[in-house]
Amino acid sequence: MVHCQMSTRSMASKTPVGFVGLGNMGSPMAKNLLKNGYPVIATDVFPESCKELQDIGAQVVDTPGEVAEKADRILTMLPSSPNVIEVYTGPNGILKKVKKGTLLIDSSTIDPAVSREMAAAAEKMGAVFMDAPVSGGVGAASLAKLTFMVGGVEEEYNAAQELLTCMGANVVYCGPVGTGQAAKICNNMLLAIGMIGTAETMNLGIRLGLDPKLLAKILNMSSGRCWSSDTYNPAPGVMEGVPSANNYQGGFGTTLMAKDLGLAQNTATNTKTPIPLGSLAHQIFRVMCSRGYANKDFSSVFQFLREEEGQ
Amino acid sequence: MVHCQMSTRSMASKTPVGFVGLGNMGSPMAKNLLKNGYPVIATDVFPESCKELQDIGAQVVDTPGEVAEKADRILTMLPSSPNVIEVYTGPNGILKKVKKGTLLIDSSTIDPAVSREMAAAAEKMGAVFMDAPVSGGVGAASLAKLTFMVGGVEEEYNAAQELLTCMGANVVYCGPVGTGQAAKICNNMLLAIGMIGTAETMNLGIRLGLDPKLLAKILNMSSGRCWSSDTYNPAPGVMEGVPSANNYQGGFGTTLMAKDLGLAQNTATNTKTPIPLGSLAHQIFRVMCSRGYANKDFSSVFQFLREEEGQ
Amino acid sequence: MVHCQMSTRSMASKTPVGFVGLGNMGSPMAKNLLKNGYPVIATDVFPESCKELQDIGAQVVDTPGEVAEKADRILTMLPSSPNVIEVYTGPNGILKKVKKGTLLIDSSTIDPAVSREMAAAAEKMGAVFMDAPVSGGVGAASLAKLTFMVGGVEEEYNAAQELLTCMGANVVYCGPVGTGQAAKICNNMLLAIGMIGTAETMNLGIRLGLDPKLLAKILNMSSGRCWSSDTYNPAPGVMEGVPSANNYQGGFGTTLMAKDLGLAQNTATNTKTPIPLGSLAHQIFRVMCSRGYANKDFSSVFQFLREEEGQ
Amino acid sequence: MVHCQMSTRSMASKTPVGFVGLGNMGSPMAKNLLKNGYPVIATDVFPESCKELQDIGAQVVDTPGEVAEKADRILTMLPSSPNVIEVYTGPNGILKKVKKGTLLIDSSTIDPAVSREMAAAAEKMGAVFMDAPVSGGVGAASLAKLTFMVGGVEEEYNAAQELLTCMGANVVYCGPVGTGQAAKICNNMLLAIGMIGTAETMNLGIRLGLDPKLLAKILNMSSGRCWSSDTYNPAPGVMEGVPSANNYQGGFGTTLMAKDLGLAQNTATNTKTPIPLGSLAHQIFRVMCSRGYANKDFSSVFQFLREEEGQ
Repeated sequence: MVHCQMSTRSMASKTPVGFVGLGNMGSPMAKNLLKNGYPVIATDVFPESCKELQDIGAQVVDTPGEVAEKADRILTMLPSSPNVIEVYTGPNGILKKVKKGTLLIDSSTIDPAVSREMAAAAEKMGAVFMDAPVSGGVGAASLAKLTFMVGGVEEEYNAAQELLTCMGANVVYCGPVGTGQAAKICNNMLLAIGMIGTAETMNLGIRLGLDPKLLAKILNMSSGRCWSSDTYNPAPGVMEGVPSANNYQGGFGTTLMAKDLGLAQNTATNTKTPIPLGSLAHQIFRVMCSRGYANKDFSSVFQFLREEEGQ
Repeated sequence: MVHCQMSTRSMASKTPVGFVGLGNMGSPMAKNLLKNGYPVIATDVFPESCKELQDIGAQVVDTPGEVAEKADRILTMLPSSPNVIEVYTGPNGILKKVKKGTLLIDSSTIDPAVSREMAAAAEKMGAVFMDAPVSGGVGAASLAKLTFMVGGVEEEYNAAQELLTCMGANVVYCGPVGTGQAAKICNNMLLAIGMIGTAETMNLGIRLGLDPKLLAKILNMSSGRCWSSDTYNPAPGVMEGVPSANNYQGGFGTTLMAKDLGLAQNTATNTKTPIPLGSLAHQIFRVMCSRGYANKDFSSVFQFLREEEGQ
Repeated sequence: MVHCQMSTRSMASKTPVGFVGLGNMGSPMAKNLLKNGYPVIATDVFPESCKELQDIGAQVVDTPGEVAEKADRILTMLPSSPNVIEVYTGPNGILKKVKKGTLLIDSSTIDPAVSREMAAAAEKMGAVFMDAPVSGGVGAASLAKLTFMVGGVEEEYNAAQELLTCMGANVVYCGPVGTGQAAKICNNMLLAIGMIGTAETMNLGIRLGLDPKLLAKILNMSSGRCWSSDTYNPAPGVMEGVPSANNYQGGFGTTLMAKDLGLAQNTATNTKTPIPLGSLAHQIFRVMCSRGYANKDFSSVFQFLREEEGQ
Repeated sequence: MVHCQMSTRSMASKTPVGFVGLGNMGSPMAKNLLKNGYPVIATDVFPESCKELQDIGAQVVDTPGEVAEKADRILTMLPSSPNVIEVYTGPNGILKKVKKGTLLIDSSTIDPAVSREMAAAAEKMGAVFMDAPVSGGVGAASLAKLTFMVGGVEEEYNAAQELLTCMGANVVYCGPVGTGQAAKICNNMLLAIGMIGTAETMNLGIRLGLDPKLLAKILNMSSGRCWSSDTYNPAPGVMEGVPSANNYQGGFGTTLMAKDLGLAQNTATNTKTPIPLGSLAHQIFRVMCSRGYANKDFSSVFQFLREEEGQ
């Protein structure tokens, strides 16, 4: 957990860093690299996404391939596996132009099998690929408070850590390539289960006559305690400053959680690992997406399960 | 959360306390009443269970009815709803001989509907019934470290608290009669969901190449954190002093968890509350009971879900 | 499976038959007794429900107890367990006035444990209680096409059958008291599972590019075949004359299915029988009840699972 | 549903047919082509698998590529997606040597997305790819009683049908490429749900006091009826000649069902289709694989769910 320390890093090391994918997460991450003194060479499939970064000093180019020509450390932050495959191995992709020895760090949340494929393809070109998905949302990205879970060859970890500490508060080395994704997927699966479980429990308790704040207090001092009960309680009126206090606006959208659970399901199916609660959690968020909860925070499962007025 | 303070309580208040049910939990609880200076009048359906308590000063009688003749504060600690019904309303039951104004405290874990029935029957006889189920196992009972969740009329709560603080570290008033059971059931349902979820997650992570200790560390600093991941981790080798470190011996048996989830299921069905993960957790522990895990700690669900060697 | 044969039954046997519960199902059932020449003595908690039957010749009385005074064969058809308990053992109940040797037949769908309690209470009064729940809806009740599943002492089965064949096309003896309920509950649990399974399958197939009629045809000639796929297909456009062809109006309401699954869940919990899919089916119909599907036919689960337009 | 009619087909059309994959299913399928007078050019990754077919007249070659040089109609029957990818697009694969206009028919059960990829790759080479997975086991393969579900361009369907009718009793055209797989996956998902549902139902009924044969009879005349209850009942003693009558030997192995449910899960995840019961069925068979049921017939889920003796 090394934080970025400007004073101990010579400017000599501040060679350009490439950045592909300037969406809600990628944009503030790239800004933090600039703030830390790194020249940034960026691109995005939507050119307008690059404007803001360009205005504060980044060099914008047209394709991932051009980024690879100009930088030997490149971060990518993309929505899903097909985008990652395209950005690395597509006709204008990074690996078409990558220089030997380049360090490639992918912070997208994708199937670990795709991370391993990308790493193998990079290795053929003499480059090194690491997966480094994040936890924490847009706010954490802006404040450089993300947690990075990093998979890849251990010898390259220090080089990756130098950059990642500029964008995150925690950087954890997880093991070989793909294990960063594995850690992210595992955490989010357990989060999903805990959230639905908390929603069911709060709803049942209320139906049985318990005051929601009191129930939350009892759970949090007992063995039912979890992050969803003590930090992000889904029942309105229990906590301030969480999406349940704001009609489930903001936060982590149900579609995003459903996507992550789809990754968990895929990895579980491929490794023949039984995940009965994880599977059911996936299905519940999937049904919610089709019943109007797609863009609400995932803690809205409390509202989804609750009896409607008048029934 | 008032602890038992000997110095501030006059001996005059130490009139006899009745105790029905001297099993694994009831016996150490009754001992703690004796230790705190209360004369105890006890009975159990198995007379041999009374020996030890008799040797240290308790008066043993034959039936719950006789207890009710001699004490105006009575605790009961019984395995399940039918036992409670028998002890209170059976031919030799407490309510056959109860004196007006008697305080009846039931620490069994049962259906809240039965608690409400007992309270109504007690009221007819001029007595007051409260439900006060516990969390914490035999160890906590011996050390007077139980948590009591108390339901009943608020005016009687202080009188109940005086006794319960001799046996527990936390006493929480939950609301009308039955809400103590509701709180207990809710907590254990969320505990069950969190445990199975943690077991699935640890298993999946290991299959994906993560070190179990590292995975637990990542979960515990992230949103996947829960009591089952940070205090009672089900994967062997992650923590010391928990059942997973001892082949799942001791702890909280799978049959007991299955019983509590049956209560959760019943209350949910009766109140038409959807509990998809709670129901599935119930079914998983039920299957485990029939596949050889009945007497292992409930965290053995990790072992149940794990791929067998050689498959 | 003996059908009612008027010609072979002497009018001498046509002593009055009591009937308690003249709702949507009970009313046409009682009419069929009248049509078959049986004098009917009826009552209902809502007197207006008795009007129509009175107009065509039934004698209406005020309470179940009065019915028991005037008839020595009595049928009951009530919504749920508490109603059955009240009608039999309440202050104006049947068992308060029942004559020795009376045959009591309950066609309500209730917990088999309650059926057994009623049978024991009846036996104390010298009467005989049988459970005989039905399958088939209001239409089948009108056309005397119901199926009765009968539990009770075998020696009394012929006497029950004589009456039931006037109201149903099939009468099946299932075993001791309670087994009629058991058969009904088991059938409906498998029906619920098959229906949700068919809905998921039709939806998935359509999403994968299959024509719904063709998919149904393939399932029905293969091992996926079930009553829900070949007789009551939930996907609109596949079959005529089923609720899915009529916006899920009519048919068997989701709340009724949720109630029957609650009974299945209770019996499974009490007998410690694992029913993972049955439990999940229960939860799905329960969630549907709270999301606006309470009064639609239960095959509307297809619509519930389907992706909304515009998502 | 056209059966193979030798008399109406001129020998002139009997140009050689290629066959790749001579396992338990492929070998009897290829024999039926020989029996119908088609010269067969075959290969398998295990040369010994080819011996028997060679003895009865097939020409055996070393690689799929060689098959493609010598035949312009080729069938493939392989265990899973990676094998299909290798046989078609690998270094010695069919598409390396395929002649323009060749008809490629893949009877493997795989992800429809892979079928579509293979079709696109074949089209680039001027060949036509169709998916034609089968239902029916080794027995049906030997007796030419398989059912083929065919996806691909409609104009080529007649040519495919000519060959497939020599190996199957039913050939069903499902739509564009991939829809054959979709139909197979959908059927098997519903089959899995129906089987587990039947097992739960039979088990619950027996626990509630019903005779298993009687319960099966009631289900089969009612709305609980399904293929698993009326043709392949999982409770021992109900039917003859099914795996449940033979300690769950033979039939369709639990691992194979788990594999097909993995495909259903993948397609559902990719198309964002909720399949709650299908997912749970997948997990149940997956747990069974790890608890000693991998090689038993999938109807052994009845045994898996049943309470053990002595519990």
